[in-house]
Amino acid sequence: MNFPATILLAGGSSSRFAPLAEKNLFKFLGKTLVSRQIETLTAKGADKIVIITNEANLEKIKSEAQEVNPEVKVFVQVGEGQAGAVMTGLKEGGIEGGVLIMNVNDIFEEDLFNELQGKIREKGNNFLVGVYTEKYFPGGYLVIENGNVKKVVEKPGEGNEPSDYVRIVFDYFSNGNELLSVLESVESANDDVYEVALSRMMDEGKIFEMIEYKGAWETIKYPWHVLSMMQHYLEQIEGQQISENAQVAETAVINGNVIIEDGVKIFDNAVINGPAYIGRNSIIANGALVRDSMIGDNCVVGFATEVARSYVSDRCWFHTNYIGDSALGSNVSFGSGAVTANLRLDEGEIGVVIKGEKVMTGRAKLGNIIGNDVRVGVNSSLMPGVKIGTNTVIGSGVLLEKDVEEGKFVRMETELEIKDNNVDISTIKR
Amino acid sequence: MNFPATILLAGGSSSRFAPLAEKNLFKFLGKTLVSRQIETLTAKGADKIVIITNEANLEKIKSEAQEVNPEVKVFVQVGEGQAGAVMTGLKEGGIEGGVLIMNVNDIFEEDLFNELQGKIREKGNNFLVGVYTEKYFPGGYLVIENGNVKKVVEKPGEGNEPSDYVRIVFDYFSNGNELLSVLESVESANDDVYEVALSRMMDEGKIFEMIEYKGAWETIKYPWHVLSMMQHYLEQIEGQQISENAQVAETAVINGNVIIEDGVKIFDNAVINGPAYIGRNSIIANGALVRDSMIGDNCVVGFATEVARSYVSDRCWFHTNYIGDSALGSNVSFGSGAVTANLRLDEGEIGVVIKGEKVMTGRAKLGNIIGNDVRVGVNSSLMPGVKIGTNTVIGSGVLLEKDVEEGKFVRMETELEIKDNNVDISTIKR
Amino acid sequence: MNFPATILLAGGSSSRFAPLAEKNLFKFLGKTLVSRQIETLTAKGADKIVIITNEANLEKIKSEAQEVNPEVKVFVQVGEGQAGAVMTGLKEGGIEGGVLIMNVNDIFEEDLFNELQGKIREKGNNFLVGVYTEKYFPGGYLVIENGNVKKVVEKPGEGNEPSDYVRIVFDYFSNGNELLSVLESVESANDDVYEVALSRMMDEGKIFEMIEYKGAWETIKYPWHVLSMMQHYLEQIEGQQISENAQVAETAVINGNVIIEDGVKIFDNAVINGPAYIGRNSIIANGALVRDSMIGDNCVVGFATEVARSYVSDRCWFHTNYIGDSALGSNVSFGSGAVTANLRLDEGEIGVVIKGEKVMTGRAKLGNIIGNDVRVGVNSSLMPGVKIGTNTVIGSGVLLEKDVEEGKFVRMETELEIKDNNVDISTIKR
Repeated sequence: MNFPATILLAGGSSSRFAPLAEKNLFKFLGKTLVSRQIETLTAKGADKIVIITNEANLEKIKSEAQEVNPEVKVFVQVGEGQAGAVMTGLKEGGIEGGVLIMNVNDIFEEDLFNELQGKIREKGNNFLVGVYTEKYFPGGYLVIENGNVKKVVEKPGEGNEPSDYVRIVFDYFSNGNELLSVLESVESANDDVYEVALSRMMDEGKIFEMIEYKGAWETIKYPWHVLSMMQHYLEQIEGQQISENAQVAETAVINGNVIIEDGVKIFDNAVINGPAYIGRNSIIANGALVRDSMIGDNCVVGFATEVARSYVSDRCWFHTNYIGDSALGSNVSFGSGAVTANLRLDEGEIGVVIKGEKVMTGRAKLGNIIGNDVRVGVNSSLMPGVKIGTNTVIGSGVLLEKDVEEGKFVRMETELEIKDNNVDISTIKR
Repeated sequence: MNFPATILLAGGSSSRFAPLAEKNLFKFLGKTLVSRQIETLTAKGADKIVIITNEANLEKIKSEAQEVNPEVKVFVQVGEGQAGAVMTGLKEGGIEGGVLIMNVNDIFEEDLFNELQGKIREKGNNFLVGVYTEKYFPGGYLVIENGNVKKVVEKPGEGNEPSDYVRIVFDYFSNGNELLSVLESVESANDDVYEVALSRMMDEGKIFEMIEYKGAWETIKYPWHVLSMMQHYLEQIEGQQISENAQVAETAVINGNVIIEDGVKIFDNAVINGPAYIGRNSIIANGALVRDSMIGDNCVVGFATEVARSYVSDRCWFHTNYIGDSALGSNVSFGSGAVTANLRLDEGEIGVVIKGEKVMTGRAKLGNIIGNDVRVGVNSSLMPGVKIGTNTVIGSGVLLEKDVEEGKFVRMETELEIKDNNVDISTIKR
Repeated sequence: MNFPATILLAGGSSSRFAPLAEKNLFKFLGKTLVSRQIETLTAKGADKIVIITNEANLEKIKSEAQEVNPEVKVFVQVGEGQAGAVMTGLKEGGIEGGVLIMNVNDIFEEDLFNELQGKIREKGNNFLVGVYTEKYFPGGYLVIENGNVKKVVEKPGEGNEPSDYVRIVFDYFSNGNELLSVLESVESANDDVYEVALSRMMDEGKIFEMIEYKGAWETIKYPWHVLSMMQHYLEQIEGQQISENAQVAETAVINGNVIIEDGVKIFDNAVINGPAYIGRNSIIANGALVRDSMIGDNCVVGFATEVARSYVSDRCWFHTNYIGDSALGSNVSFGSGAVTANLRLDEGEIGVVIKGEKVMTGRAKLGNIIGNDVRVGVNSSLMPGVKIGTNTVIGSGVLLEKDVEEGKFVRMETELEIKDNNVDISTIKR
């Protein structure tokens, strides 16, 4: 038996991810998350693969997915929430039998796919996945009886957890037709039709066996999650994979595990401390240092720049900068001396304002989150956790302490005192 | 036959060139433009060489010129404009026969001198030089009949060009006496006596044969032209000419064509990417990068400084700076972290204010134009195209968006909020 | 005969040394001044060694001293001034015979100890030490007759010097009991009991033979004296003493005389230009430069940082900084791009405010004096000679022109103009 038909969810508007663009199109080690999931599912022999997305990302996601597997179908979501996405997938995809529902941006180990496949071969059940969690996590906790999930309790609060297992979206339904009809029957004013349908099926006695998952799970909700996702992929680099078409100066130093793509140029005295990924045609200039980072295609990491623990998209340009613990969109450039501050002066936990509310990131080190098409002037200082919207310019010498929306131009107002110089500088000899 | 007597014009007050000092005394590859022209004319065997200059530069120009050829005569201009200069040259220089009139700061290929010499040998004509120009250029266009210039039309406006040839000042008159008497006879309220005399001679039927010139022509009018003149000379460097008295650390890297003069020290991990010229006794310190640039004598390009596509005069001192696409006088120093911004944030064409008017430079990259004896404080940011006058101090942390006159001290006014620190920093452990 | 009993003075409150902590506990080449003096005196076989200090430093000084020689006694000073300290030492130390009085932070060459020892062996005199001084020095001048000191004239004023010899505190009394009784008999409203006692003994005909001293003398009074003391010790380093437990990258460069302690890591392309000392477990990161400096234990001299002619205590952290001619306490960190300006723009002598009065330092190059537990934000600029108190935070982008007391938080107030960006940056291609 093959792997079941799979509906991949890629439809959210990702407003919590702003100013970064569609997360499922973010590349890690040169491949988007979409491509990676399609690769995995295609390798497993998935019966059908259907992606549900929104109008804005349709073409890009389709092109990414079909480049890997031309059989993949991509549809724009009709209806609200996860229920709408799943119903669109079932109907447009013509899925009537077993179906797996998962998010594009949830990255699991291959074992989970194998285990599901094995379980399906054994039994005709539905399956849900529970992640063993020691510390309280604000998600949906599973109520378990004899290895079966009886109920999902959303955010029970610390101390009230019904078990140590939190649900992740990797839901297998043995009967797509049945799932569709339950979803169609649920009415709810909230955005929880899918969850209500699940409860109803449990209440009606359908068996949802729990698959326990203890492997790595990476997901992207907030923009700084790009950094942990990056770390996940960086750790998978093995050895030094340096393209034959890359030019590495004799005095450049490359330590640790790296992928260096075609057309990359690494200039004299540059240092790359792996794990690191350098995308096609990018330049790592003299005296630059890249460590624990991903650099996209066609970037220039200019003279004496350090990029540390940062995700840099395509066509970014740096020049004597420090880019630390930051996630940058494409076509971002920094003038000489501009700096991402990645540590509070009290070295406390860094918060980021998401939709008007400060969200603590759990990180002591976090630089900036910068959208596509941004310019930062020379000697500017960007404070920890500050976000900059797309198509925005930060002038020179700016001390930026707050988020800037997209499409803005920020200029520092300064006052200069101009008086006569009473020293004859020509007489100063060294 | 030898090369004709030549009057070299070096008399302009160069106000458009401010804050840089006399352009004819600018050194390229270690020699002033004056020296270079005298060398060329001396090598050609010029009958007489006369330089006309102003009071201020007399001694320096005389010393430069006579060091190359002690026979050169240098006179202070009497009378206005080019006519005044030429008349001074003819009279004081005692030039009665054939005479070539040219500017010191017009640099032509040697072919032009050879061609003129050949033509004179053939015919007793006067000669003017026309440069073939595809795109409209706001200069004097030649009206040509049968290879002879009939008229010069100043700035005819795009679309009204009488030919594709623009006049450059490389004028040969077969009879100096005649030229003098015509010049003396012209009366004009404007600064155009020379041009009027030329017209009159043409109207009177004197033959001015056109020599067509398609070679390289470099000239200096505005200060940023120093950079294109520099580029011209940098391209002439062949191989790696490194003085035996220079000290180059084992770990220093020198790529491409360079001239490195006596007494230069290049420290560990410094990189020089040619073409580049490093003047006597200058230091290129640890981790510094010099590329496509000229560095004068007794300079220090300090730790982790990049000098790119820039002209640096003698006794300049840098320390962790970016000097990009800039032209600097002598005895200029930059504090650590001070930066020349060489690119507008919109990457548009850079304009420079010349005598109160913004002049577009045709350059997307242009840093700063800085006179002699200037100090720039640490972490200051100099915006693209800004000029700084001689003997001026720019304080620390200054964001300089406008030109500063000579003899000024510019200080950034800042307001600091000083409150109690409620964190016990001694408890922060890493 | 052994070396006499010695009373080491370490009791001053060092208010002129603020914001740096107790000077006698400053380490040079890994050893505090206290340890060094105890080592010297122990090696000479001093009869007894007694240190007089204050309550605050008692435990630290005792532990430092007794680690070298468990026989050393340390007492808290009772009574005022030097007289109080000496009386405490004589009484608590039970010193009745010959006794040497000296300051912990006066560093002399070993010859002086030897000469004193020889003289004592010869004669039963008291001895004072005079330093031959060409230029007027505001200290105590010796009136000399037949090689004996007849009187000490405090600060006689230039031109009124009674001799060319200035007194330094290296006073030997042949009879401790006698000294104690004279000290006890003096009454003075001023803080000069010790000096009055000395005068009285001279007036009474006691012989104080002068020992002439022409060797090196280093002392610490003002905080910048740490830098000259450092220089003194740096010059004593011989060869390259690199611990076997230190890790030095292949591309790192080490020139000149250095001590590199256990656990140090020197990363690729770092340069150390001796003389230099690097304390235990410190990291000199990629592209960093350390020269003519001491770095304490557990420091990180981060990417592209230069530390020049500076004293850095333990647990300091730098990142793309210039630390020049500065003295830093422990647990100090600088954000990327922060700079100590070490040269006035007019290159004049640098003054430092000590207890409200500007004191000229005699130095053209002096950066900053920074107490323990200080944080400096990114891109801040600290002006020459400015001091920062302990447990203080200097925010980002600050231009600091004045001293900051301990326990403060300094923030730059900036005004940003935020307008719409009318350029579509996505269209800008490189």
